[in-house]
Formats: sequence, structure tokens, C-alpha cells
Amino acid sequence: MIQEIAFKARQASIRTAALSAEEKNCALAAIAGALRQQEKRIVAANQEDLAQAQKDHLNPALLKRLKFDGAKLKGAIEGIESLITLADPVGRTLSARQLDNGLELYQVSAPIGVLGIIFESRPDALVQISTLALKSGNAVLLKGGSEAVHTNRALAEVIIEASEGAGLPEGWMALLETRADVNAMLALEGYIDLMIPRGSNAFVKYIMDHTRIPVLGHADGICHVFIDRAADLEKAVRIAYDSKCQYPAVCNAMETLLVDQAIAGEFLPRIKAEYEKAGVELRGDSRTQNIIEVKAADEQDWKTEYNDLILSIRVVDGLEAAIDHINTYSSHHTDAIVTEDSQAARQFLNRVDSADVFWNCSTRFADGFRYGLGAEVGISTNKIHARGPVGLEGLVIYKWKLLGRGQIVAEYSGPQAKPFTHKEMNKPCPL
Amino acid sequence: MIQEIAFKARQASIRTAALSAEEKNCALAAIAGALRQQEKRIVAANQEDLAQAQKDHLNPALLKRLKFDGAKLKGAIEGIESLITLADPVGRTLSARQLDNGLELYQVSAPIGVLGIIFESRPDALVQISTLALKSGNAVLLKGGSEAVHTNRALAEVIIEASEGAGLPEGWMALLETRADVNAMLALEGYIDLMIPRGSNAFVKYIMDHTRIPVLGHADGICHVFIDRAADLEKAVRIAYDSKCQYPAVCNAMETLLVDQAIAGEFLPRIKAEYEKAGVELRGDSRTQNIIEVKAADEQDWKTEYNDLILSIRVVDGLEAAIDHINTYSSHHTDAIVTEDSQAARQFLNRVDSADVFWNCSTRFADGFRYGLGAEVGISTNKIHARGPVGLEGLVIYKWKLLGRGQIVAEYSGPQAKPFTHKEMNKPCPL
Repeated sequence: MIQEIAFKARQASIRTAALSAEEKNCALAAIAGALRQQEKRIVAANQEDLAQAQKDHLNPALLKRLKFDGAKLKGAIEGIESLITLADPVGRTLSARQLDNGLELYQVSAPIGVLGIIFESRPDALVQISTLALKSGNAVLLKGGSEAVHTNRALAEVIIEASEGAGLPEGWMALLETRADVNAMLALEGYIDLMIPRGSNAFVKYIMDHTRIPVLGHADGICHVFIDRAADLEKAVRIAYDSKCQYPAVCNAMETLLVDQAIAGEFLPRIKAEYEKAGVELRGDSRTQNIIEVKAADEQDWKTEYNDLILSIRVVDGLEAAIDHINTYSSHHTDAIVTEDSQAARQFLNRVDSADVFWNCSTRFADGFRYGLGAEVGISTNKIHARGPVGLEGLVIYKWKLLGRGQIVAEYSGPQAKPFTHKEMNKPCPL
Repeated sequence: MIQEIAFKARQASIRTAALSAEEKNCALAAIAGALRQQEKRIVAANQEDLAQAQKDHLNPALLKRLKFDGAKLKGAIEGIESLITLADPVGRTLSARQLDNGLELYQVSAPIGVLGIIFESRPDALVQISTLALKSGNAVLLKGGSEAVHTNRALAEVIIEASEGAGLPEGWMALLETRADVNAMLALEGYIDLMIPRGSNAFVKYIMDHTRIPVLGHADGICHVFIDRAADLEKAVRIAYDSKCQYPAVCNAMETLLVDQAIAGEFLPRIKAEYEKAGVELRGDSRTQNIIEVKAADEQDWKTEYNDLILSIRVVDGLEAAIDHINTYSSHHTDAIVTEDSQAARQFLNRVDSADVFWNCSTRFADGFRYGLGAEVGISTNKIHARGPVGLEGLVIYKWKLLGRGQIVAEYSGPQAKPFTHKEMNKPCPL
């Protein structure tokens, strides 16, 4: 069953890969229009989910994420409209090289194929992800949270009907509904090219551990701020405060603060006063405890993503020790240095092995919207393909198109071999 | 033991990531010099391996690949010298965007980290791969074929001594020697970021099936040539012949020839005459057998990489059927169309889901040297990160460097939020 759906998606992906920008944008416009028209039906479906969730005593934060009213729908439609204005990520010529007269090589961006996307509770994600997949010419299998089953079903029906009506191939998008479907999906490495799980750390880790399909995402967000001896302490307080307190529940919030011993005596009391106002629980190593009164932090704290108003603090000997600590304990997500010494900043930025390395600004800037990526697919701590906040370009790869006039390799081999010209060209692929 | 070596490599990778182009090129020059100086030692080690191989009755093809004499060493050294002339793949600014006045985001190429590379018999590969890793700022764990154990050991000792003497961090490169080491490596997903296996299909498939570490490579090379009804049959004969016969043992050789029924009656007898001269065994579907006398091909043939002078032939209804056949049976490596109809070529190039899609030229061109990539890491049929012939850029990823002056996210949030400028900049990252 799932295998059949995935096979259909793969067949469809061959067609979606060859769609023009205009065809894709028309389909996106049709989806936006249909969502606007079907507002009543969608909101009614969401009411069903909300009523069930209240019966099930879901916590208020989850209820808030589950809610999909007229305002949320409007936001989703605006997202589609802004997606239409973005350049087509497919068909861009990334490099062009003449191999010989009349033998031209083009590296051209192309869709990845079939995406498998699993997300929790928030129905907005369904709209966002399916339209990102469409814009990038991919087919997509989606599985949403079971608490949003009616909303997701209504949204998927509207999107599928509108897009297929606008010429997209049947089966390019499908909604899966059960946990068993997810496990079936994880085994379909022949059909699905990339999995993108969005949700809790444990959930993402489960996906990563149970499939051979490449996974784009991040399990943990253990982010650091290092206050260097050459820091402007005014900036240091602002950045350390914002990185922890501006929104502590998210992956780009700081979990461990590293402080250079040279300025720890001056800095720690100042930042402690600020954190106390915000009710942050502080845990420090023994050198921190020698300076300010805080609970003890242990090895486990360096490895913990609190996602809460809790912060571990470690006093380090200096830049080298800070880099070592981060490369040992960081989840390679986002780490920042506060310093007025550009040489220290350079060392930090080049030697901290993380997706996002910041100088004199808050870790909370690590985000596709703030980066100006136009649309965010997610945040990746992978070391290949895409790293950090991922925009539409994370949903494409490239293919090599070689255009000849009958050339064969025998002519370019052996003692009489014709030489290659290997001349870079500055023109887009004509096909 | 292996875990310790891998841990050291990871530590070293932090240092190699921050090396300047000059430091890396000096180390490469030191390696080239040391290899030249140590020629006697290396050739003597290879003699030992060759003597053992002869005792073990290795087949002549393997013996030839195992041989590492003065000429092979000279070739390897020339490879290093040309690698020195290539631009540093690390530290390139891929994009630059002002988020706000004094808040600048740079996407900068960076090494992947630790590479795990496994290769068979050919000792040249050790020199090539370790120097590619160095140039791209990665640490590397290498495992060569056991029949080349003495040669590989001598080469690795010379390279490690020379490079560490030139300032590379201890442990940046290590040679593993046993099959057990390989299996240990496959489990080290916390230390190794990318595996690159080079060898037989079965070997690559084994690696892909036994690790959670991303694998760059290709298991199969089932390549097709489609002769369209609008083909110039002169070109078609040349290309079909070259794609099969120029070097049949390699992954970019054609395994299945697809022929449009409209021209099959004219084309098949002509190409058969050519293949007969080369001693190619032909197997055809029933429509082929109606035109020329060949053995019968069955479903299994469409899925087989012969790597030999054997070819399966299928007569298809036309372009659509050819694209369907290829997307069903191809290994997504290299597929070509021969046609004078540019619209047919466009359809083929955009809808065949393969790394390399060719128009009017031989499949044998799919190769990093012929593509002018400067250095070839391997050929990938992955759908993410790197596809087709992979040059040095396949060994790098990027990191995001955000340079600020104390900015915090709170300023850009809420009703009084400062807007982002999101202005593209045209300048390299200063750090």
C-alpha cells in the first residue's frame, strides 16, 4: 500500500522534475486560491481536531500549535504567494564548460526526487512543506501529527485537487496517516530520496536511527556563547541574555555559557543579576562557583539541551579551551564568540566545527527567515549537502548535461588523442 | 584502538580545517618531494607485495593494478603537483548578505571533517586520496587492499612523515590494515563524517548497507544509449559502438541499447555488423530478434551490469518508452540519447533521472578528468550532496559566519521590531 503510493510518487517525480517555472507557479496560485475558497471546510475540520484534543486534555502549548483558524490560513496563503515570487531553484546552470568544440558540459540544478516529510502537530507545516516541494519540482509523501488528522486531511485534499487540476501529475503528493505508515516509509530507500523529520529531538533521532534514507535535520541544539577576555562586557551581557532568554524553548537558544577566566570575576556577577531577573536557573563548574553562588554543573550538563530557563556556565582558560569544549560538547548547530579581538574571532569561526559560527551577535539569529533565505525547509546539522538553516536550494541537487555532435571517447584516447579544451563558458544550458 | 585513531583524526580535523592554502600547498610539496626521495623504498615494498601476489596466483589484471613502479610513482607525484595548482576549495565565500547595518552573513566553504576511504588493490589511490583530503582540509582514515599491504604502508609512512613535518597536525591521516578495522570504522558515525568506498559493486554495496555514515559513491553502472527515430544513424553507430566497446569493464560503459522501432529495421543490422567485429555478445528482446539474429534477453538482462563485451538490446515504441525503461532499470549513472531532434533531446535530458544525461555523445565521457574537474574523488549516484563525477568540491561543505556588533534578536522581534535589510553583498568574508 505505502509502497504503491511511493512508487506512484516516484513516477510523478519524473514529471514534476520537468515542469517549467510557470507551470509550478500556476499550480501554486491554484493552491492559494483553493485554500482561500475552502476556508470554512478547513476551519471546520480543525474544530473537530481541537474538540478531540480538548477531550484528550492536550496541554495548552500543543493546543495552540494545533489551532488552524482564518488568521493561520491567511498566513499560509501569504507564504505561498511569497514562494511564487522566488526564483525557480530548478534548471539553474551552476557551471558550464566547453570540453571541445561542439562538446559542452552543463551542471544544472535538478530536483532531488521524492521527499518524505514527517512533522508534528502544526498543520501550517503541511501547507508550507508541500508547496516548497512543488516549487522545487519534487514529489512528496507527508505524515502529520495524529492529533491534526482532520485538518491535515482537509488541507491535503484541497492542495492535491487544486494542484492536479492545474496540471501536476497524479500522485505527486500523498498524505500518510498512521505510525505504521511512517515505519513503512523508513524502509523505502528505493523510492524516497530524502527524509525531513520536523519535531522533537527524540523524534528526529528515532527517524535518523531507523532508516538508510538520507535524513536532513537536526536532533539537538546545544549552542554556546563564549565570552572572550577581549569582550566588550556590555555587548557580552546583551548577547548572553538574548541567546538564553529571548526564546529558550528553541534549538538556537544557548545552553552553555563559556567565560574566559581573565574576565570571569567582572562578568559573572553582572550577567547573574540579569539572569535572575528573568528567573534563569544557573548551574556552574567549580571555578564559576568560586565567583558567583550557583548550583553545581556536572559533565551531564555540558551534554544537555535544556530548552528551558536553565543555563550551565563554565569558566575556561581562554580561547583554546573554549574551542575544545565546544567541539567536544556542541551539537554543531550554532556557537558564538563575544570579543573585540578580530584574531580571536577568526580562530573561533574557523575552528569551531558548527553549522553557524557567530561573532558578536546572538545565537538566536540562526534561522532561515532571519538569514533571508526566503523559505525555510529546516535546520540541518549534517556535514554533507546542506548545513544550518536550509532554504529551497536544500531541496535540489544537480545533473550533468553533456551536449555533443557525435563525439566518442576513442577520439580522445591513445597516442593520437585529441586534447580537451576545458574552457569555462558563461552561458546557461540551452536544454 | 580504531576508535582512538578516529578520535585523533577528529581532533586533527579541527586544525586541518583552519589551515591556509599556503600551508596545505607546502605540505603537498613536501609530500611530493618525500615520495620522489623514497622511490627505492616504495618500489621495494611493492616488490614484496608483487612476489606474494604471484605466489597467491593473483590474476594478471589484478597484478597490473597492484604494480607500483617508478613510472606509477612519477604519475602520482605529477598528480600532487597539479593538485597544488588548483584553487583552495576551502574558505570560498558562496554567498554574502547584509542582514542589517553591521550584521553580515557569509556562507563560506569548509571541510567536511573526517573522511573514511576504502579502496582496493591500486596503491596509486592512497596517494591520490590522501592528498585530495589534505587539499580540502579534511582528516582521513584509509584502508587499502590487503594484497598491497607493504606498498600502502610505505606510502602512508612517507606521506604522514612528510606532511606532519610540514606542520600538519598529528593523526590527520591514518592507515588501517585489516578487514576488522573496516567494520569498526563503519560503526564510528560520531567520528567519521563521510565514507568513500572505491572498488567492486559488491564491495561498495556492502559498505552502503552496513553503516549509518553517509556514503559517497556508486554501486552499479547500468548505462543506456537510446537511438531515437530522428537519430543520425552514422552518429548512432559510432556512439553505440564507443559506449560499449571503448572500455567495457568500467561503470560508464553502456549495458543496454534502446532502439526506436521506427528506425530499428535499418539501424540494428548496421550496429550488429560493428559489434560482431569486436566480438560483442548480443542479447535482444523479441522485437530485436525479429530484425537480427541474437540470443534472447530477459528481465534480468535489463538489471545487469555486464562490465564485459555483452550487450542487451530492446526495441521500444519511442521516446516515452525509452525514458520509462531507463528510469525503471538505470542505476542513475549515465544515459545518452542520439537524435537530431532537439525537443526529444530536451525531454530526455530533463526526464531521465540520472547523474549524467548526454545528447549525441558517448556515455564514456562521464569522468572527472574528461569533465575537467582537475581531480576526481569518485563518481556518485547519490541524490544529495554530490552527483556524477565528483571533484574536490565534493569534499567540502559550508558553514555560516555571522559577523555582528552586539546585535540581539529581541531588537528584531515584537511590535517595535527593526526590519532586516537582507541586501545581497558582493564581497568575500573578511574572517
